[in-house]
Amino acid sequence: MEPKVTYSDLVIVGAGPAGLMAASWASRLGLNARILDDKPDRIQNGRADGLHVRTMEILDSFGMATRINEAAYHLREICSWNPDPEDENKLQRTQRILAKEEEYGRFCQQDVHQGFIEQNFLDFLEREGRVHVERDIKTTSLRLDEDSMVDHKAYPITLRVSRQAPASTGDIVDTNCKIPRLRKIKTKYLLGTDGGHSWTREQIGLEIAGGKTKAHFGVMDIIPITDFPDIRVSCSIHSAKTGSMMTVPRENRLVRFYIQLAETGSEGDDFDTAKVTLEMIAQKAAKILSPFHLRYEYCDWWSVYTVGQQCAPRFDRDNRVFLAGDAVHTHSPTMGAGMNVSMQDTYNLVWKLGQVIQGIAQPQILRTYNDERQSVATRLIELDQEMCKFYEKGPGSDAHHYNKFYAKFRTFLSGAGVEYGPNILIPRTHKEESSHSEPRNGFDRKSSSSLTSRQSLASNIIVGRRLPSHLVLNHAEANIVHVHSMLKSDGRWRLLVLPGNIAEETPMARLKGLCQYLDSASSFLRTYTPDNEKLDSVIEVLTIHAASRSKLELSDLPEILHPFDPKLGDDYWKCFVNNNAGEEGAFDDAYERWGVDKKQGCLVVVRPDQHVSFICGVEEIDQVARYFDQILVPQRGKRECNCGH
Amino acid sequence: MEPKVTYSDLVIVGAGPAGLMAASWASRLGLNARILDDKPDRIQNGRADGLHVRTMEILDSFGMATRINEAAYHLREICSWNPDPEDENKLQRTQRILAKEEEYGRFCQQDVHQGFIEQNFLDFLEREGRVHVERDIKTTSLRLDEDSMVDHKAYPITLRVSRQAPASTGDIVDTNCKIPRLRKIKTKYLLGTDGGHSWTREQIGLEIAGGKTKAHFGVMDIIPITDFPDIRVSCSIHSAKTGSMMTVPRENRLVRFYIQLAETGSEGDDFDTAKVTLEMIAQKAAKILSPFHLRYEYCDWWSVYTVGQQCAPRFDRDNRVFLAGDAVHTHSPTMGAGMNVSMQDTYNLVWKLGQVIQGIAQPQILRTYNDERQSVATRLIELDQEMCKFYEKGPGSDAHHYNKFYAKFRTFLSGAGVEYGPNILIPRTHKEESSHSEPRNGFDRKSSSSLTSRQSLASNIIVGRRLPSHLVLNHAEANIVHVHSMLKSDGRWRLLVLPGNIAEETPMARLKGLCQYLDSASSFLRTYTPDNEKLDSVIEVLTIHAASRSKLELSDLPEILHPFDPKLGDDYWKCFVNNNAGEEGAFDDAYERWGVDKKQGCLVVVRPDQHVSFICGVEEIDQVARYFDQILVPQRGKRECNCGH
Repeated sequence: MEPKVTYSDLVIVGAGPAGLMAASWASRLGLNARILDDKPDRIQNGRADGLHVRTMEILDSFGMATRINEAAYHLREICSWNPDPEDENKLQRTQRILAKEEEYGRFCQQDVHQGFIEQNFLDFLEREGRVHVERDIKTTSLRLDEDSMVDHKAYPITLRVSRQAPASTGDIVDTNCKIPRLRKIKTKYLLGTDGGHSWTREQIGLEIAGGKTKAHFGVMDIIPITDFPDIRVSCSIHSAKTGSMMTVPRENRLVRFYIQLAETGSEGDDFDTAKVTLEMIAQKAAKILSPFHLRYEYCDWWSVYTVGQQCAPRFDRDNRVFLAGDAVHTHSPTMGAGMNVSMQDTYNLVWKLGQVIQGIAQPQILRTYNDERQSVATRLIELDQEMCKFYEKGPGSDAHHYNKFYAKFRTFLSGAGVEYGPNILIPRTHKEESSHSEPRNGFDRKSSSSLTSRQSLASNIIVGRRLPSHLVLNHAEANIVHVHSMLKSDGRWRLLVLPGNIAEETPMARLKGLCQYLDSASSFLRTYTPDNEKLDSVIEVLTIHAASRSKLELSDLPEILHPFDPKLGDDYWKCFVNNNAGEEGAFDDAYERWGVDKKQGCLVVVRPDQHVSFICGVEEIDQVARYFDQILVPQRGKRECNCGH
Repeated sequence: MEPKVTYSDLVIVGAGPAGLMAASWASRLGLNARILDDKPDRIQNGRADGLHVRTMEILDSFGMATRINEAAYHLREICSWNPDPEDENKLQRTQRILAKEEEYGRFCQQDVHQGFIEQNFLDFLEREGRVHVERDIKTTSLRLDEDSMVDHKAYPITLRVSRQAPASTGDIVDTNCKIPRLRKIKTKYLLGTDGGHSWTREQIGLEIAGGKTKAHFGVMDIIPITDFPDIRVSCSIHSAKTGSMMTVPRENRLVRFYIQLAETGSEGDDFDTAKVTLEMIAQKAAKILSPFHLRYEYCDWWSVYTVGQQCAPRFDRDNRVFLAGDAVHTHSPTMGAGMNVSMQDTYNLVWKLGQVIQGIAQPQILRTYNDERQSVATRLIELDQEMCKFYEKGPGSDAHHYNKFYAKFRTFLSGAGVEYGPNILIPRTHKEESSHSEPRNGFDRKSSSSLTSRQSLASNIIVGRRLPSHLVLNHAEANIVHVHSMLKSDGRWRLLVLPGNIAEETPMARLKGLCQYLDSASSFLRTYTPDNEKLDSVIEVLTIHAASRSKLELSDLPEILHPFDPKLGDDYWKCFVNNNAGEEGAFDDAYERWGVDKKQGCLVVVRPDQHVSFICGVEEIDQVARYFDQILVPQRGKRECNCGH
């Protein structure tokens, strides 16, 4: 039995997808973290189900994507159905478009029920064996000690929790739960991922802006029995008189239906969602789909809800208490974005918390969480409002209009187009020379450093976005690997060295100069790595050169790029080769796709969350050093643990 | 505690890869089967490690490939090193070739230790929950009742087994073991996968031809510390004076070394393998690799062995006792073939046993096991002898010679080139018009039926080989799927309907004619499917048409191709679309790759092990009926269980 007061670095309240993503990071980083949930088990069915490409990449960086990718429905096509102009009682397919999300990354957009995704997180946590969900735990009070808030080694947060009475079935016993009855937890940081009715948000007195809309949806997951031809692709269906609905196919023959119910004049005043039944929803769906037939024998889940388009003005309290997911933003389900944005919130946050807790990075990096994610949520809600308008118009809206809108939001929605900064972690680009034109609303330009990235050296590696992945060759093994497979979520920064064609003299000389610095006593690798750890434990140097594998041996590259270990030999998994013009098989030319010149090359600093923070020339390693000087904590000579105990 | 005498349909003796593959089939088919092993646990390290593309396909058909594919080393490049002609004390790389096995299928050739592969089988059996390995079991006697051998419902085999004393550690308790002490098992069929010193083989008095060679190899799995540039690709290294060795990289930084030891004049008479130590092997390896350096701190496993090139004249006794794997064929490790051929043996056998045990197919199909697999082993040993000769020549052999040889064996070795028949399951092709030229040694042409396949209708779907997989679109979902993903190992035959471009009148008329037959009362689907089972439970009809998805709805195809279930609606996972000239994205045009004409089409009968047994025209469904008439057992009106109880 644990003592009455326990100490944690991080307590996560709520074990939905956002909380579980946070717990997974905490597990990987080895944080002293706990995750509490007031329910006896995970979601069993229904709820969220859409996964976009960036979410799949993130899950893959933890080794969790494969099982989901194998089980989920892959969404490739989206069809629109509208009333036939010649007979409005009939429906006709007005367009077919390809989702094409796989163009942005290595995965299709996909759909599988939230419980399956949660189970993958739970299995991951079980395998890692460090952090376990403690269930049936009710948080009863939260107290912040204002005086110790500025000291990042202090435990300013006091949380009181109690174990709830066992569920009525009586046989659910949570062996992970260490809490006997009422207990006190003191923690450095608190993360509230406790949903739309967030207790944590309420405790810190945060008001959420916006409100309920007048749009009510009936939602059901059924195995449909129908003659509608497009039941296994995602559809937007507008009837002439009965309203609209959306369908998204799922795993195990299921299809998710979103059915527009009667609209109210204002904020939910004359529509009683409590009176809606499954039969009403199903009948309405059948009516919208008429003259096609629709019935079902099996319903997996159903619900009714009123869309709220709301966003909290801040996602944190003094960088000590953080909120993520539904606790700070809600919107319609029409874009299948919610679960993705929620998981991406905590994926953005927890590596930063980890680096501060472990004394690797300076506490001020924590404020980028609010900067980066609040603006994403704001943008999402803007898009959602536009989407809902389009949707409400129904039959009147034309395909051209929708296509334009779709093109605008799909890069953002896929997650691949999400762009952070400028801020302390993402210096601005030189003369704003960036080749893209999307607005960068909501960023605090004052917080950006005086360093500037040279975007022109890698025109398609957009500073602030996640690094696009391409296929390259392992120099030693000749294996074809995705760049993302080297960027596992393990908390490390990466310096991507792209020295160009080092079979030529100038690029090789530049590379050797760079390595001389990296190998020197004053190298930032040495400054920021604790003495008792390997030189790649805080910042890993990965090289992708553009010389032919046949012109160069790995040993021709400076040793610091493939470090030697007296017990294990060389590290053969840090040097890679660009596939110049497909000379080793028909696949990516990464340099070309990234817009990197093979004579000039460049350096790319990649954050632990795969977002690009800085780009400069191969000869400008001093710039990289300045970058790290601004955010990391020197470790030189430090041997003691930095976690405050 | 089980009774003194128990009854089984199948007993498997030996739980190595071949035995575990057999057990996996038995589990999938729901057979009353047992698998016994005399050791307390699976292999922990060392032993076999190479996996070829066909083996990966087979593992994937059970859902076991992904984890292996993620953990294994992918072999893409093979290099030769020979003495420098200018200074024979130096080595030089004389050639680099790409393994290119992924050209034959969806997987690279790969390497991971045998224990990992066995663990994947064990996890599969655990998930399925039907068949478990019973360990520490010693088989003590085998008796065959000759009189009842001809009755396939009888139990002519009596096996006596005893539980061995627990292992010396004392704490290994096998909870799967149902055998208290001495017990008697009566079984219909027995499979011996009990290795080179097979007890089962000895019991049935089978002599194995051939013998030990004079070639002795030292084998070690180490983490090498070396400056040799090609340590992470597979190498064949010939020194001027110290002999030769082969290297194959592996998972977790390991490299497998095969080092040629002193040769003896004749059968092992003056070389004592018992005196060889790891130090001797490692020193020899270092000497062969000189002037490069080689040392290690960690050795995972090592062994010494003498190559035996042996093959049993038969792989069965009266189609009641079967042998597979090392029990009936051994050869050198130089081609990394052993474990693959062994697993493919039992993959070939057990679906046949299952169909006979379950009364679906006629017992005479069992004799194809010996026909098909004994000839593969014979061919393998021929190739191995050639390989060993090449290998012994060492520095003298030129690259051109090796390349020619390599090209010859790689299709066969990949498994994709293995070709069965003609025999009762594989009718011969019309006028021997097959477009390939490899010899078909060792097949009994007399057993072939009078039916003839029309190879010219699908010039690249070679009758007798496994169906090559290409990417096609699911008609209803627009998803891109591999044809192999529809051919799971579940014991079903498949009729692949390739009707061509059914947006045109003639192909559609032909398809409708075909479906009229399939849907009729006299259809072989009805004849060979038990009354109480779904119409696709013995033979599944899968359609891949070559009309554009935009020209045709799924409902335009006859219902028998996407059968309707009153509780689940249509089956949307049986009709697929060829990607004509990449119109739906840049990937395979399966018809073109298979050599199937889009106006004419064809029918392809695929066995439960994905091998192609018969090809005919779309209008020749009567030929398919005749094919099944020869091998299946009519089920009409049968309602009782056919398993003999």
